[in-house]
Parts: sequence; structure tokens; C-alpha cells
Amino acid sequence: MLDVCLLGTGGMVPLPNRFLTSLYVRMAGSNVLIDCGEGTQVALRKFGFSSKNIDVILLTHFHGDHILGLPGILMSMANSDRTEPVEIIGPVGLSKYISSLCIACQDLPFEVKLTTIEKDQGEIIKDPYKITYFKLDHRIKCYGYKLSIDRLPLFNKEKAESLNVPMSIWKDLHHGNEVVLDGKKYTPDMVLDGGRTGLSIVYATDTRPVSQIVNMAHDCDLLVLEGMYGDDEKMTNALKYKHMTMLESVNLAKLANPKEFWLTHYSPSEVSPKKNLEKLQEIFPNTKIVKDGHSISINYED
Amino acid sequence: MLDVCLLGTGGMVPLPNRFLTSLYVRMAGSNVLIDCGEGTQVALRKFGFSSKNIDVILLTHFHGDHILGLPGILMSMANSDRTEPVEIIGPVGLSKYISSLCIACQDLPFEVKLTTIEKDQGEIIKDPYKITYFKLDHRIKCYGYKLSIDRLPLFNKEKAESLNVPMSIWKDLHHGNEVVLDGKKYTPDMVLDGGRTGLSIVYATDTRPVSQIVNMAHDCDLLVLEGMYGDDEKMTNALKYKHMTMLESVNLAKLANPKEFWLTHYSPSEVSPKKNLEKLQEIFPNTKIVKDGHSISINYED
Repeated sequence: MLDVCLLGTGGMVPLPNRFLTSLYVRMAGSNVLIDCGEGTQVALRKFGFSSKNIDVILLTHFHGDHILGLPGILMSMANSDRTEPVEIIGPVGLSKYISSLCIACQDLPFEVKLTTIEKDQGEIIKDPYKITYFKLDHRIKCYGYKLSIDRLPLFNKEKAESLNVPMSIWKDLHHGNEVVLDGKKYTPDMVLDGGRTGLSIVYATDTRPVSQIVNMAHDCDLLVLEGMYGDDEKMTNALKYKHMTMLESVNLAKLANPKEFWLTHYSPSEVSPKKNLEKLQEIFPNTKIVKDGHSISINYED
Repeated sequence: MLDVCLLGTGGMVPLPNRFLTSLYVRMAGSNVLIDCGEGTQVALRKFGFSSKNIDVILLTHFHGDHILGLPGILMSMANSDRTEPVEIIGPVGLSKYISSLCIACQDLPFEVKLTTIEKDQGEIIKDPYKITYFKLDHRIKCYGYKLSIDRLPLFNKEKAESLNVPMSIWKDLHHGNEVVLDGKKYTPDMVLDGGRTGLSIVYATDTRPVSQIVNMAHDCDLLVLEGMYGDDEKMTNALKYKHMTMLESVNLAKLANPKEFWLTHYSPSEVSPKKNLEKLQEIFPNTKIVKDGHSISINYED
């Protein structure tokens, strides 16, 4: 199972009724936060979570509205007597930004491990889940993230028994490993019944439309994209500041076909983002224009 | 007139229903902010103000809950197309902290003027008002601030006329200057009718009790002090972390005798700070245990 909560839905500036965009994900016993703007630690508390439990923080890029909450959240973790290390993953420059922002965070009682992303695309394995990062097209280097858990294929007990596969090696074969026992070779296909789809969510804000988003999000469980501007006449701004209009985002969603699609990162000038919903759902019916605290639990299909 | 709004009342950590302690003061056409923790810009908006208009930011000290909102508020000022300079005043280390915290604030369209406080006590004249800073007793160097506007003495027109003081020099004499005209010396006492009290507020958080607070706040219009701990059994924490209990603060207020006294900077563990009110008002009746957004307009007495 994978629990997801969109802690905030704002872009640029935190507002009294709209936290900055940040996604909290609980999966496979791990707690992942994507981006941490000013006030993200308050949103975490408001929606029933604790900064104490965060294991990994993924940063999309180094604009203020995505990172200025970092020193505060690290200090709150320290105040909660956390001692486990926290890992922060982000673009080149990570070490410089973290050390500079955290000038007031002295003597944290836990290690802050920094993992710098350098390639345009890659994977970070956090068994049993996986973080895939992919480069977006913003004014500064910016990444989208895919979080996914693979699922073991179905195990066919009857097939294993009929082929006289010893029970002691079922687990190894189920995990895809060949086994030689008493001189006889056993292969995974002797016990497997075809693949099963895992779980995956894809998150991308602060970008012009790029094909990588569609490639990554193809048939995923949840796609979260920015809807910076609802009005199509804001296209000039979208081009100038390298953001997406809601229309551009929903067109990507239509191509990717996720089970669920959320818009977020609304401009402060978007007072009522939902006014565009009907028009967007005509293009892609699974679209949701969500508010702070919107959450979902995603389970395996069967 | 002097408008004061306590934007937040929390200490250490911003909470969903409690912003971090920060005071906003409008006086003599100037807008002054004391401290700027994570979320202070949100509180400003919530209570009807704008970061665009801030002229001076006074920092008490460099603990995170008093400064981590600075980069965000400067960026919001930039987004509002402000071009007038903003002045930040704070203890030694100011330049290092500001440049470090503001790593993500590139190309601000206005000047940030830094004024570093080095002495234990002193005055910064911002005609017609004055900022007096005074050293407190915290774990790191920390200052309290007094904001005051002097008031001209009452002008006695009858006295001036009976002494044949030419009208052309009334203003000079009223402002306390001697004037020689046509060989004759005129002195201020020829037109004045005794002094009048100005307006003043005193703000001090994050400190053990010190006599400077009482000296500064004597008969002032408003005294704002920290009430970090309501329960007297938290005295050990107050000593260890160099804060004041509500009881310690109210005892200082009793000695200083301000017209109004507010407590703020409550520990996150103080869920209901008001529970102590009755006991404290027995010591000093003008005591208020206030909430975020508490405000007052202070006028000259007559």
C-alpha cells in the first residue's frame, strides 16, 4: 500500500489558506517528502503527520518556494529527539544550498545524508521501492520524480508441485533467481504465473511540457502535475517563467493515462482553481483540481 | 498614533493554529517588523497587512524561530514589485546570516541595508521615531527593542503673544531651539507649557529576567514579553534554555507598570496559555495573554 497526501497546492508564495506544494508519501515502511517550502512542516502537522518520521526528502529544484522550509523542518526533527539519519536528494548544488540555508541549525542530533543528482535521468534503489528522477524544463535545473514499488509475479503452486520443484527453493525462484539443486537446474518460469503490476506515482512541477513526463507516468496510479495557470491567456507567463497551464498539463495526462491525475502548484493569482475543472475533465476525465491535504491510499489491484 | 499587531504568539516551532512570535508596528508613516520566523509572511497577509510596505526589520537574535522567514518575505517583497530599500537591524553576525539564509533570493529588485548592533545598548534615530536596543540574557546574543515617538511640549500661544515673540520663530522655539532675531534672544521656555509624554512600546523575548527590561518599559504604553512557560514547574527549563516563565515576566511588568502588558512566545507544550491569566492578573492587572493577530491602536492621551 502507498499513502499519499498533497500537503499544499500553492506556488511562489505561501498563503493563509494555501500551503506551498509538497507531497508526502508513505510506502513500504518509508516516509518520503517531495519539496519543502516555507510552512511545509506546519502542513505536515495540520494533516496529522510528523516531521520526525521523514526518511527521505526529494528536492525538485532550488527555487525558494520549494526549499525554504528545510531548516525549520530539520530543527523540528531535532526538537523531537530524532536520531535516525535523514537523506536529502536533489540537483547539483545541493550541498551548497543545504549548508547555506541551515546556518541556524546547529548541532542536529542526526546525520543529514546528501545525495546529489547529476544525470538527466536515473534510479535510486531503496529496496523494496525505487526513486526514478528525470530532468524537466524549468528556468533552473529541475527534476520530476517517480516513486514505484515492483510486485512479484503470481506464484503458481500447482505448477511448482506438478514439476516436482522442492519447496525449499520456491522463494528464490519466485524472486526471479535460477537455482541448481542436486545437479538439477530450476528456473523461475517453473513456478511463476505471469507478471503483476506494481504501484507507482509520478510528480512533476515547475516545467514546460516535456515527453519525459508522459513516458514516466504511462498507466501509473497517480500523476501529480503543476497547474500554475488556469486561464489560457496566461500562456505568455507560462512560457516566460517556464511553467505549465492547466490545459498543457491535462494534455500530458491524457497521453500518460494515469489512474488518477491531480493538479497543484497554483499561482497566487488563481483564487478559484476549480473553476476550470469541467473543461479539463472533458479532455481527461480522471482529472482532479485538489486542495491542501488531499490524500489517497493506493492498493494493489487484486 | 501607533498601530501594533502581534502576528504570532508561538515559540520554537510554528503550529497549525499558532504563528511564530513577531510584532508589526506602524508608526509615523513607517512600518516596522520585529523578528520574522517561518510563516510570518503568511501571518502578515492573514491579518490584513502586506510585506511590500515593510521599511525596517528588527531581529532580536539568530535562533531559527526568529529568522527563518526572512528569505521568503524578501522574495515576496520582490514579487510585489517593491523597489524601495528595506533595512534589517540585528546583532553581530547579521551580514553572515542574511547572506547565508538568502542563497535562494537572487536579484532582489531593491536594496537590503544591514545595520549591525554591536553595543549592549544604544539608539537608532528614525526621525520622528526612535529605536532603542538593549541586550538581554539568552543562550546567544539577543536584544530587546523599544520603539518610541517623542511628543512636542504644549505650545502656549497666550504666553508667546504676551512676551511679543514674533510668529515667524514660534515653530523653531516649539521644537526646542533658541533664536536670535534683530539682536534679541528668544528661548523655548517663552512659548512652552511643559512637556508631554510621547508613545512607546517595549518588546523582549528569549531572555532570563533582566533589569534593563524594567528600566526601558517604565510607564510605557505597551510591554510585550515572552511567556514561554505557564507552569511554574517548568522553571528548570526556563533556567536551562534561558527563557522566562509567565510568572517571571509578570513580575517584571509589575515593576515597569506599562499601560498594557501582553504575553507571547508560548512553548508548543502550552496548549492553553490563558489558563494562567487570573493568577497573573492578581499580580499585575493590565496583563493580557493574547492570541495571534491581537492588535491595538495607541493614541496620545489628550
